[in-house]
Amino acid sequence: MGKGGASAIVTREEDFPRWYQEVVARAEMADNGPARGTMVIRPWGYGIWELMQAELDRRIKEAGAENAYFPLFIPEAFLKLEAEHVEGFAPELAVVTHGGGKELEEPLVVRPTSETVINSFFSKWIQSHRDLPMLLNQWANAVRWELRPRLFLRTSEFLWQEGHTAHATDDDARAYALRILSDVYRSTMVDVLRVPVLTGHKTARERFAGAERTWTCEGMMGDGKALQMGTSHELGQNFSRPFDITYSNASGSLEYVWQTSWGVSTRLVGALVMAHGDDFGLRLPPTVAPAQVVVMVVKDDASVAEAAARLCAELGAAGHRVRLDDRTDTGFGRRSVDWELKGVPVRLEVGPRDLADGNVTLVARHTREKRTVPLGGVAADVAAALEAADRDLLAEATAFREARTADAATLEEAIEAGSAGFARLPVAALGPDGEDRLAQHALTVRCLQRPDGSLAAPGDPDDRLVAVVGRSY
Amino acid sequence: MGKGGASAIVTREEDFPRWYQEVVARAEMADNGPARGTMVIRPWGYGIWELMQAELDRRIKEAGAENAYFPLFIPEAFLKLEAEHVEGFAPELAVVTHGGGKELEEPLVVRPTSETVINSFFSKWIQSHRDLPMLLNQWANAVRWELRPRLFLRTSEFLWQEGHTAHATDDDARAYALRILSDVYRSTMVDVLRVPVLTGHKTARERFAGAERTWTCEGMMGDGKALQMGTSHELGQNFSRPFDITYSNASGSLEYVWQTSWGVSTRLVGALVMAHGDDFGLRLPPTVAPAQVVVMVVKDDASVAEAAARLCAELGAAGHRVRLDDRTDTGFGRRSVDWELKGVPVRLEVGPRDLADGNVTLVARHTREKRTVPLGGVAADVAAALEAADRDLLAEATAFREARTADAATLEEAIEAGSAGFARLPVAALGPDGEDRLAQHALTVRCLQRPDGSLAAPGDPDDRLVAVVGRSY
Repeated sequence: MGKGGASAIVTREEDFPRWYQEVVARAEMADNGPARGTMVIRPWGYGIWELMQAELDRRIKEAGAENAYFPLFIPEAFLKLEAEHVEGFAPELAVVTHGGGKELEEPLVVRPTSETVINSFFSKWIQSHRDLPMLLNQWANAVRWELRPRLFLRTSEFLWQEGHTAHATDDDARAYALRILSDVYRSTMVDVLRVPVLTGHKTARERFAGAERTWTCEGMMGDGKALQMGTSHELGQNFSRPFDITYSNASGSLEYVWQTSWGVSTRLVGALVMAHGDDFGLRLPPTVAPAQVVVMVVKDDASVAEAAARLCAELGAAGHRVRLDDRTDTGFGRRSVDWELKGVPVRLEVGPRDLADGNVTLVARHTREKRTVPLGGVAADVAAALEAADRDLLAEATAFREARTADAATLEEAIEAGSAGFARLPVAALGPDGEDRLAQHALTVRCLQRPDGSLAAPGDPDDRLVAVVGRSY
Repeated sequence: MGKGGASAIVTREEDFPRWYQEVVARAEMADNGPARGTMVIRPWGYGIWELMQAELDRRIKEAGAENAYFPLFIPEAFLKLEAEHVEGFAPELAVVTHGGGKELEEPLVVRPTSETVINSFFSKWIQSHRDLPMLLNQWANAVRWELRPRLFLRTSEFLWQEGHTAHATDDDARAYALRILSDVYRSTMVDVLRVPVLTGHKTARERFAGAERTWTCEGMMGDGKALQMGTSHELGQNFSRPFDITYSNASGSLEYVWQTSWGVSTRLVGALVMAHGDDFGLRLPPTVAPAQVVVMVVKDDASVAEAAARLCAELGAAGHRVRLDDRTDTGFGRRSVDWELKGVPVRLEVGPRDLADGNVTLVARHTREKRTVPLGGVAADVAAALEAADRDLLAEATAFREARTADAATLEEAIEAGSAGFARLPVAALGPDGEDRLAQHALTVRCLQRPDGSLAAPGDPDDRLVAVVGRSY
């Protein structure tokens, strides 16, 4: 049983970016679209995204937000209302100048994010303190022109959710931004995607255009680089003032609302590849695996086919997502390599010899361990193997991150440690030109935290915080 | 208990289009977007759409199609490859000419539909008969410039699903187009939305730009006009030839694939309003009601609040979607009118007097009947009321359509009957210039069927079919 006709992919060690591209292509997750920077998400990649979406959507609804949908096209004038915001996004905009066969009077921007259009409606919908908090989310596509696109990580068009909320007080807005950060984002990333993340806030240099404070979840990828996996912003009154979003408080006077916005995107699919992948391809945590178990017919044989079909039915009834692979006109080795590339957590190989002894072969994708298991106990073995995959992937990614994280006392030490992983540098040692100097080494401050890794409170002086420094995607 | 401060909406009889606008606005389903023809879908409207999506998506997956996602931006040249297709869509296109601060070398069209971009990938992915059938679906937004926009029914940007498939034979493609028509579309429309639909195929004049045959589901709205609710197209080899989508058959020679495409959109939300609404607002079939039951606290009182909360918990545990309305600082009449407008199938009014007798008041939205029911049996009463709503809405819409459908022997009779509803005219009596003459009276052939209402088979001569004639949206 060899590797069949498929040539092996490059190793992560040899060339991590090329390894990433090859996994995404060979696992049939995505292709480049015809227009620069766009992406075709194929069923395997989209299936992963759908499962993530379901997990995120449930948590967003539990946090009280309702889904809505706002237009793709935003009049150019809207974007100009918040000065920092337009400055931040202007270089990335796609602009529609013609519609219905005519040149438009006012060009329309394809949404890079929807703060401006949503806030123009908040201004209309919010009148009284009874209307607050207003908590909306939308699932949508967004467009930001990319000069150096990379599938899932950085594409001109991406899919995401963007939440937008309005609150009566600054405290309420902050509490909600943090609730989203921990109960929705961190929970999905850690509990579902099994990617450990650091949380903290961005420096002024790195924060969202128009935000007062940007909270972030930062994951470490398999090459030691950071990936910003999701952000939750406190917008203060930066949008409510230009968009005139006011409410009458209990005593009848008008106040501007306090706001948040927050988003995660199809970038999370890329995070999954880079955080868990090995030299044989993707390794999927069971909750977001479009197929959790594949039952492979080793060779064409009536009793094998029957046993495989029965196994599929049994495992499906036990609540697992199961696929039958009975494409015996394709070599077994080739098919095995393909399922490894796709990262299906458990493979069951059903062959005539094993079957005669009442056994099948169980292969755990994440360890690549094979063992013979009796047919009668397969359901329990599969359940145990899925649990082990779920547990081990997080443990492995956490151990990897810890091994690549170092405390640094000086900027020089941070530059060295940050080039291979994360450096934890006291803000006091960063100094006023620290971020400039990091940038010369392609490093950035990923987030600021308290020394124990917890989030800074509003009163915390910056110079008691720690800066997490690293390279990033 | 009066109607409170809310002014009544116009009746359907007085002004159906204005009634529609008022219901959509007052039920907080949608608003006009800032760019011409665009739409903001508010949580109540989006909640309905999400529930429809779930029903459609499950059926699409049962029919074997997998979800994927293709880019929003399509190079202009792609659209020109199929002549009829570009001619059909050219007047409706939105065009991006600038991206990332520069004028683009080739303008990008915002997808009006994705045949062209998807087929360019089919050409790459399909090699062998083993790759067939290839069955893909995507949930996405699409843009077709609208000069006379109407919320949900006709908007420049809309949300939809579009399915695209490739098959080895004409017969297989036809069978799949019909499977989608009946098992996905008709089933969702009738069994879930409770809107009876006629199915048949379009005349050459009315079919999709690039299709060989367009199958359609046509519903009758509350003013007797037809709404095309969903279409499933046989594309023949019209796209596979220009896009060069070939496969090697079992004997190794190259053949062009046969294709289908099919879609339904947020227009279905408009259909629901117009098919079931009455002079008090929306009436929702329970399966797509974001709230199936609202429990109203009649007035501020501790025991009432407690009983209402308990009822919510009990009904939620029984599997219903329940909302608590304890906004006692808003008048009870006003709140009742609002829930009627939103079409929530069942209201439970919990007040101190009823409660003292161990009762609550149950109001069925679709009949507006109120009755006093004992607290102990509320769960069973609510279940029965939801079942009755589901059953009655379909029966009522079917009876309405039947009363407004007439057999016509001549074109003149069809013009008269078609102005108030549907006229069934033998194709033989339509004559070669029949569609032109109908158009002069703002009438069209909605679909062709066999006289018994069933679908035409490939061999059926047109002149044995019946044309369903009506006005339409």
